[in-house]
Amino acid sequence: MMHKFEEKTIRSEKIFEGRVVRLQIDEVELPNGKTAKREIIKHPGAVAILAITPDDKIILVDQYRKPMDRALVEIPAGKLEPGEKPDVTAIRELEEETGYSCEKLELICSFYTSPGFADELIHLYLAKGLQKVENPKSADEDEFVELLEVTLEEALQLIQEKKIYDAKTLYAIQYLQLKEALNKSE
Amino acid sequence: MMHKFEEKTIRSEKIFEGRVVRLQIDEVELPNGKTAKREIIKHPGAVAILAITPDDKIILVDQYRKPMDRALVEIPAGKLEPGEKPDVTAIRELEEETGYSCEKLELICSFYTSPGFADELIHLYLAKGLQKVENPKSADEDEFVELLEVTLEEALQLIQEKKIYDAKTLYAIQYLQLKEALNKSE
Repeated sequence: MMHKFEEKTIRSEKIFEGRVVRLQIDEVELPNGKTAKREIIKHPGAVAILAITPDDKIILVDQYRKPMDRALVEIPAGKLEPGEKPDVTAIRELEEETGYSCEKLELICSFYTSPGFADELIHLYLAKGLQKVENPKSADEDEFVELLEVTLEEALQLIQEKKIYDAKTLYAIQYLQLKEALNKSE
Repeated sequence: MMHKFEEKTIRSEKIFEGRVVRLQIDEVELPNGKTAKREIIKHPGAVAILAITPDDKIILVDQYRKPMDRALVEIPAGKLEPGEKPDVTAIRELEEETGYSCEKLELICSFYTSPGFADELIHLYLAKGLQKVENPKSADEDEFVELLEVTLEEALQLIQEKKIYDAKTLYAIQYLQLKEALNKSE
């Protein structure tokens, strides 16, 4: 069904096609008949994994993020390969980034990260029943990460210190806080 | 202090400079001495506002989002103008998008939305003490939004229906759920 504010594409111009993103400019017809230009980033989508170890720690990765020129501590994440189902990506990325396999994988939720200018959709999974893989597939050769295993309290401290500073990780940590609070109030 | 995985910029090539985003490709030196290319979106940053009415409803905006070619229901948000402080942006965007001013504005947290490829930083505010502005400043002329005022339960229903489907809004709703759960467990 058409949305009342739908913006019809008049033309779409591809500006750049990269390894990760595509940039295009769409000229659109607005609901009032006028036209406008929209700068749009197309992204393959990604998964993120809230992985909980048998001793109830959260697995985090410390990595350098070039767009901000700083390191961030995040939950493990990675892009979808073409045609790959998100749960397959999640299992692959968990093994590549952390060396763990998991017995139980459950979708928490999915969300667009920057709907104003990008179509990136992240699927957030909860992984439990973790087991160390003997010869784990290794990560992309241009990816350098350090693993951390932290308690919920330690994760909250990393948020205070602004080392954890991205939407998916903040959402995942808050998800655990909510779960804990709901358990207590039962 | 230098991070152990720091990626030094060898050169940076500007591909596109738009009204909202800039795209550049940075060639970097990796920790192992090899080089890699990073596709980077530069964004001015944004604010989002969790605005609670005197009768405890959440203000949401229903708008068309061209990158996904669909409508989304989100909390009010908007880009920072050059040199504008985030709390000033928050007050301006709240008035422009909803017609409300607020007596109390409090930063909940800030987060990068897509640290793998973009530097967009969103500052999320809690706005209370809302009052209808008589002649509110109007929104950007290419912005068409419909206002909703919903209870927390109704917001959770919108999440179920995937009408609410973006990171900042999911985080904000979960923040309210956590607050409510913590109140109950006290």
